[in-house]
Amino acid sequence: MKIGIIGGTGDIGQGLALRISDKHEIILGSRDPAKAVEAAESIIATLKKRGTVSSCRGTSNEEACKAADLIIISLPFQHVASTLAGIDPKYIAGKIVISPVNPMIRKDGFFYNNPPEEGSAALAIKKMLPESAKLVTAFNNIAARKWTILDEVLDYTVAVCGDDPEAKKTVIKLVRETSQLYGLDAGPLAVSGIVESITPLAINIAQINGLKDLGVYIK
Amino acid sequence: MKIGIIGGTGDIGQGLALRISDKHEIILGSRDPAKAVEAAESIIATLKKRGTVSSCRGTSNEEACKAADLIIISLPFQHVASTLAGIDPKYIAGKIVISPVNPMIRKDGFFYNNPPEEGSAALAIKKMLPESAKLVTAFNNIAARKWTILDEVLDYTVAVCGDDPEAKKTVIKLVRETSQLYGLDAGPLAVSGIVESITPLAINIAQINGLKDLGVYIK
Repeated sequence: MKIGIIGGTGDIGQGLALRISDKHEIILGSRDPAKAVEAAESIIATLKKRGTVSSCRGTSNEEACKAADLIIISLPFQHVASTLAGIDPKYIAGKIVISPVNPMIRKDGFFYNNPPEEGSAALAIKKMLPESAKLVTAFNNIAARKWTILDEVLDYTVAVCGDDPEAKKTVIKLVRETSQLYGLDAGPLAVSGIVESITPLAINIAQINGLKDLGVYIK
Repeated sequence: MKIGIIGGTGDIGQGLALRISDKHEIILGSRDPAKAVEAAESIIATLKKRGTVSSCRGTSNEEACKAADLIIISLPFQHVASTLAGIDPKYIAGKIVISPVNPMIRKDGFFYNNPPEEGSAALAIKKMLPESAKLVTAFNNIAARKWTILDEVLDYTVAVCGDDPEAKKTVIKLVRETSQLYGLDAGPLAVSGIVESITPLAINIAQINGLKDLGVYIK
């Protein structure tokens, strides 16, 4: 599968490229294509040293969408609208789009879920996409630092929300191909706000209790 | 410690009585005191068969509060206000109160978090209590069926929220004495809505994926 990542130089883009570019073609998009090219080259070199042949290249966000079968939005929530506004919707139409986006604010030292009026980042992003795009949430609660350290096994539960059953199946399969992540169907997009809110909770628990890179297991 | 449980014939009351009445004095309260007496006797008999000496008795909700050092509200959210209205506030004043309450609704086959306008059940319950009561959330995400089966080890993470540091410490200690539950400070009461919302998420995941009694681990 060709996977295009908007904001692909971030943790999720680099993490996914490191972990599944031997099985899938990863296209890292960036506002600054040169940065994406550099990130892709670094990932290919890292994997080559380990004897892994991988497919990863860098380009613009729009080109990443155009080339992809499946698109991942790896951006802070406040940058999603403006970034999507710069991409021709025809390159997104009909495709599966994954949102790992968690809307957060920090107040008095603690992180809070800060959803838009739609109830979740995903429900707001859905309105920004062409109607034929199939939005699914996944990869929301994974500690950023762990993504990019290839020797860290990711064995968390990934709650996957969405309204298109086939798209959700494809995403759950993709999740389960990524390290040892365990993707589970968590219901419709309408409950995505719960999954998004677990990230500030995990960050607070880590910070208060002197723990690091906490993840979530539902089992 | 003397622990009074409002709605004590429910899962949490019976579960806690089964699991910590050898270390603490458990007072099960009920709208129907005879039912609480019966539940307490059954628990004592069950534990006696195992050679465990326990302290558990049944009474009214008000008497349970009066006798307790620490109070647990084990009720569906929609019954909390009316039940508390029937209890003299002087029996609650100054005490630690634990809310394991999760406000939920079911819609189209899925469970949703359904918080009151305050943002969480706990924030709404805080308003119903005397100002000197110290409200802490705990035990929110534990599968009901497992509570009451003594042979089931409970080893979940329990996210504990509250605004009184000493009260929170006491509750975390109590959680860690209960089976193998791992209590962690999760921040102020203001974030309790996140913890409450994990329960419908876990129920949905269980239901959709044919799993049972799911719990949450944050580690």
